[in-house]
Amino acid sequence: MAVVLGENQYGKAEVRLVHIDRSTRAHRIRDISVSSALRGDFTSAHLDGDNSHVLPTDTQKNTVYAFARDGGIGEIEEFGLRLARHFVASNVWTTSARMEIVEHGWQRISTTGGTADHAFSRAAGEHRTAVVTVDRDRAHVIAGIGGLLLLKSTGSEFRGFARDKYTTLAETDDRVLATELTVRWRYAAADIEYGSLFASIRGILLRTFADVHSRALQQTLYTMGREVLAAHADVAEIRMSMPNRHHFLVDLTPFGLDNPDIVYQPADRPYGKIEGSMLRDDAPAPGPAWLTIPGFC
Amino acid sequence: MAVVLGENQYGKAEVRLVHIDRSTRAHRIRDISVSSALRGDFTSAHLDGDNSHVLPTDTQKNTVYAFARDGGIGEIEEFGLRLARHFVASNVWTTSARMEIVEHGWQRISTTGGTADHAFSRAAGEHRTAVVTVDRDRAHVIAGIGGLLLLKSTGSEFRGFARDKYTTLAETDDRVLATELTVRWRYAAADIEYGSLFASIRGILLRTFADVHSRALQQTLYTMGREVLAAHADVAEIRMSMPNRHHFLVDLTPFGLDNPDIVYQPADRPYGKIEGSMLRDDAPAPGPAWLTIPGFC
Amino acid sequence: MAVVLGENQYGKAEVRLVHIDRSTRAHRIRDISVSSALRGDFTSAHLDGDNSHVLPTDTQKNTVYAFARDGGIGEIEEFGLRLARHFVASNVWTTSARMEIVEHGWQRISTTGGTADHAFSRAAGEHRTAVVTVDRDRAHVIAGIGGLLLLKSTGSEFRGFARDKYTTLAETDDRVLATELTVRWRYAAADIEYGSLFASIRGILLRTFADVHSRALQQTLYTMGREVLAAHADVAEIRMSMPNRHHFLVDLTPFGLDNPDIVYQPADRPYGKIEGSMLRDDAPAPGPAWLTIPGFC
Amino acid sequence: MAVVLGENQYGKAEVRLVHIDRSTRAHRIRDISVSSALRGDFTSAHLDGDNSHVLPTDTQKNTVYAFARDGGIGEIEEFGLRLARHFVASNVWTTSARMEIVEHGWQRISTTGGTADHAFSRAAGEHRTAVVTVDRDRAHVIAGIGGLLLLKSTGSEFRGFARDKYTTLAETDDRVLATELTVRWRYAAADIEYGSLFASIRGILLRTFADVHSRALQQTLYTMGREVLAAHADVAEIRMSMPNRHHFLVDLTPFGLDNPDIVYQPADRPYGKIEGSMLRDDAPAPGPAWLTIPGFC
Repeated sequence: MAVVLGENQYGKAEVRLVHIDRSTRAHRIRDISVSSALRGDFTSAHLDGDNSHVLPTDTQKNTVYAFARDGGIGEIEEFGLRLARHFVASNVWTTSARMEIVEHGWQRISTTGGTADHAFSRAAGEHRTAVVTVDRDRAHVIAGIGGLLLLKSTGSEFRGFARDKYTTLAETDDRVLATELTVRWRYAAADIEYGSLFASIRGILLRTFADVHSRALQQTLYTMGREVLAAHADVAEIRMSMPNRHHFLVDLTPFGLDNPDIVYQPADRPYGKIEGSMLRDDAPAPGPAWLTIPGFC
Repeated sequence: MAVVLGENQYGKAEVRLVHIDRSTRAHRIRDISVSSALRGDFTSAHLDGDNSHVLPTDTQKNTVYAFARDGGIGEIEEFGLRLARHFVASNVWTTSARMEIVEHGWQRISTTGGTADHAFSRAAGEHRTAVVTVDRDRAHVIAGIGGLLLLKSTGSEFRGFARDKYTTLAETDDRVLATELTVRWRYAAADIEYGSLFASIRGILLRTFADVHSRALQQTLYTMGREVLAAHADVAEIRMSMPNRHHFLVDLTPFGLDNPDIVYQPADRPYGKIEGSMLRDDAPAPGPAWLTIPGFC
Repeated sequence: MAVVLGENQYGKAEVRLVHIDRSTRAHRIRDISVSSALRGDFTSAHLDGDNSHVLPTDTQKNTVYAFARDGGIGEIEEFGLRLARHFVASNVWTTSARMEIVEHGWQRISTTGGTADHAFSRAAGEHRTAVVTVDRDRAHVIAGIGGLLLLKSTGSEFRGFARDKYTTLAETDDRVLATELTVRWRYAAADIEYGSLFASIRGILLRTFADVHSRALQQTLYTMGREVLAAHADVAEIRMSMPNRHHFLVDLTPFGLDNPDIVYQPADRPYGKIEGSMLRDDAPAPGPAWLTIPGFC
Repeated sequence: MAVVLGENQYGKAEVRLVHIDRSTRAHRIRDISVSSALRGDFTSAHLDGDNSHVLPTDTQKNTVYAFARDGGIGEIEEFGLRLARHFVASNVWTTSARMEIVEHGWQRISTTGGTADHAFSRAAGEHRTAVVTVDRDRAHVIAGIGGLLLLKSTGSEFRGFARDKYTTLAETDDRVLATELTVRWRYAAADIEYGSLFASIRGILLRTFADVHSRALQQTLYTMGREVLAAHADVAEIRMSMPNRHHFLVDLTPFGLDNPDIVYQPADRPYGKIEGSMLRDDAPAPGPAWLTIPGFC
């Protein structure tokens, strides 16, 4: 028996960066967090502590800042591609580079004189994500959304489920459905219109969540994904994680009160967790696209 | 010497509650977290473990849910007042009740057919707050906002400051100013138009943040508070906490690049922390209004 | 009516600092987070944006690091006193300085050759705290502990409590009692043996929690505080916050199983929250000692 | 083109459970969080909202509690195996079950009369983990540790690294090395001595971290893994994630002070992130063992 070095990667995580475009009277602000991970021939660093193949993570951080100045951000998928291609091209021992970017949006503040040119407020929750992997042959681009809290006050059932001796849950034909959506979709090609695609896909996801009458959270998830795939041939695959944030109807009968679907107690834990992927039957193989992305099958 | 029992309070913290108003076709959803704290004669519980004066925190939780059903939420200040007055009125040993409520807003999802009636999304960050204290004589109402991230891309200086032997900071006549606003204001009276006042005050705070040319974060804070007090006689006092979330301009000269106020590194820690209060010179005394509210002078 | 500037303070929050004493073969490591807040005559900064009285928060950060090098940390109460006295003495407009310090402990790793000289592991939860306030006349020192999770598997009742129409809770003569202790005590004098006092007081608190048969969480809290005051004349006052982390016995009867106090579901929210203070009847007045400390009456 | 349902799973996440063994005078307490995920034939739930194959997540939660009562916890790997085998055996449409368990340790409080029988304190950080996957043919068991903060005050270099035009980092022959270890190891067989193996492996990891002179964090990681594999034939593979929590030496020269490796500023973000796996060359294939475990290659 011998010990073998298996898969490995290293990089700089959570490089925070704010970019301000001052070229117009109304400034434009971009707020991103960038994590790099390089894969390749780093065996000697592991076995012998020989760092001659290791580009420091500090250098990776510097590169992120320099590229933001020299070329700007653009769509985060584009920024990730530029960086990943650079790391693979410039370091012979790096065979694959993975860039993960999270973007938080800021909006201009409304004032009495109209929209402010230089003052912004930010919603802390929802964020846009990208994971770009570039190897010698190909570029893989995954876009996504995280932290999006959604709730339906009606139009959600859960009935006809399997039962065993541990089943006590009552069936319901009208419940509150609440979730915190994490969704990622893989593009079939690398150089496309990321900005307009993102806006369209986000709209489809929200609209479908609102419109579909839900008989199972799995059905909601699947329909949302299917609609995205049906609308956009550029999307090869979509994966979603939808926790079921339970809202329990409070029993008020001890106090002489009814509760006709009005007062709920949202629970923190435990929560249901529904995860699934949908893809085209002719989708190209994902290769390393999904490697080390947490929380997906 | 003898040991004396000093100030004390007890209650139920973070009772999570979602209320759905289904009386119109388009549902209305309220999402709040309620914390109660009772003060009064609880000496025997402390000294002897005699609970005869102690209304269980479980009962306090039940009361929150029952009142939400029987009367609805209304503005969170009103809900807090109803609850606090109940606890003082119904338990002879409770001389003062404090209700703290945090509300998260949900908005209807836009669909192709217009705005959804039953589907909502939520911004996770900004929230509305209320702290209501009712004792035998008076009601005290403090409203507020938390988690509001604000940023100015220009129009902020920091110059002419005091120096000592540990001062290395350079003066600047144009910096990025970013903060996460926590603000609370105390009303002069208890039964007023909380909803419209909140909307107006929020607007003034944002607008003033955007409009004022900042020579010091203290000046920004003070001007925001002053404008609220000038516009609304119902506001007796306003307190703010404004962390200074530093954005450091990245030095790109090692890479042959300039950086004319474009690429910044936001820092997590440490951060400046500016806290201040502004009040009318004829403001009524606060009494217990601010007791156990964290983070204010 | 005129707007008046009320209480205010400013400083640098969460200056992270690790100090390594290499003067002995076995290194000693200190891991602290320091927050400063200065109070005084800063009116012109607020009203006019005139910073001439404002020592930058960046300078305050520098001072923390310089003092750590030049004098070391010592007990965190001592470090806070040195810093606070410096800020009051060196800046004529600063009339009061408040230093808050949080310390995380590290322990040496055990190896086959004994205890490591240079390798440490850290428990992430429990931490030691100090809040020191120095004004022109006096120094105020508050020590404490945070993040200490405690649980009793028996020896805790809750019976004989007050009832009203919203009370449904059953009495219990044996429940699980779990809490996350936050405790702070105010010393009667400023220059005492902080290290040995801390160790003794921590021991008393833990021991009393274990030993006292609890008829109410208030009684547990009070007894813990009383024992500390009884043992140490240097302690003028002690304040505690003890959330009641409910552990609900799971009902297993639907599955044909009993549950004789064996399987519990710990709940996240809501939780009871018991806060109280105990003091000597001859304790000196606290002055500003407790200002802006969150969560205490 | 058609849309295909890809990989999917569903279950109940973070079922919190405390188990108290009262069979001896000194109670024994177990504190775990259990997450289940079932895989199998759930296509009709996704496509048609037909739940007839779907065992509710509520039932999965009930099963966790019932099994804890009826059989106890044992080692968390054993508890996971019992549950996973049950879900696969009892539901014909479930072809694979994955149980993830996190355990927090509690220790008895020391009192003057010795160690308490019924009172415990808990360290909040370090925790023990298990991920068990059972399918029709095999059981896969992964054990691990999370949240373990480690620091070396000397014995760590970083030199001889690759350079490009964005490299500014200076070489160092003595730096502070700090990390928060996440480690998981896969066992070659399913029914072994999990408790003693865990204790031995934890000891090896800590000891090796302390003893190895580090020329690269990769080398530290690899050596820790290799030592575990060398000592325990039951371990087929080990994976580690070691963030490099940078400690920057503070420049005190502006204040006339040197800083000979004494005062450091620990940084929050960004941080290096080193991830790697080591395995036996004769290790059995992992199958689905690592599926949906976050953060590993």
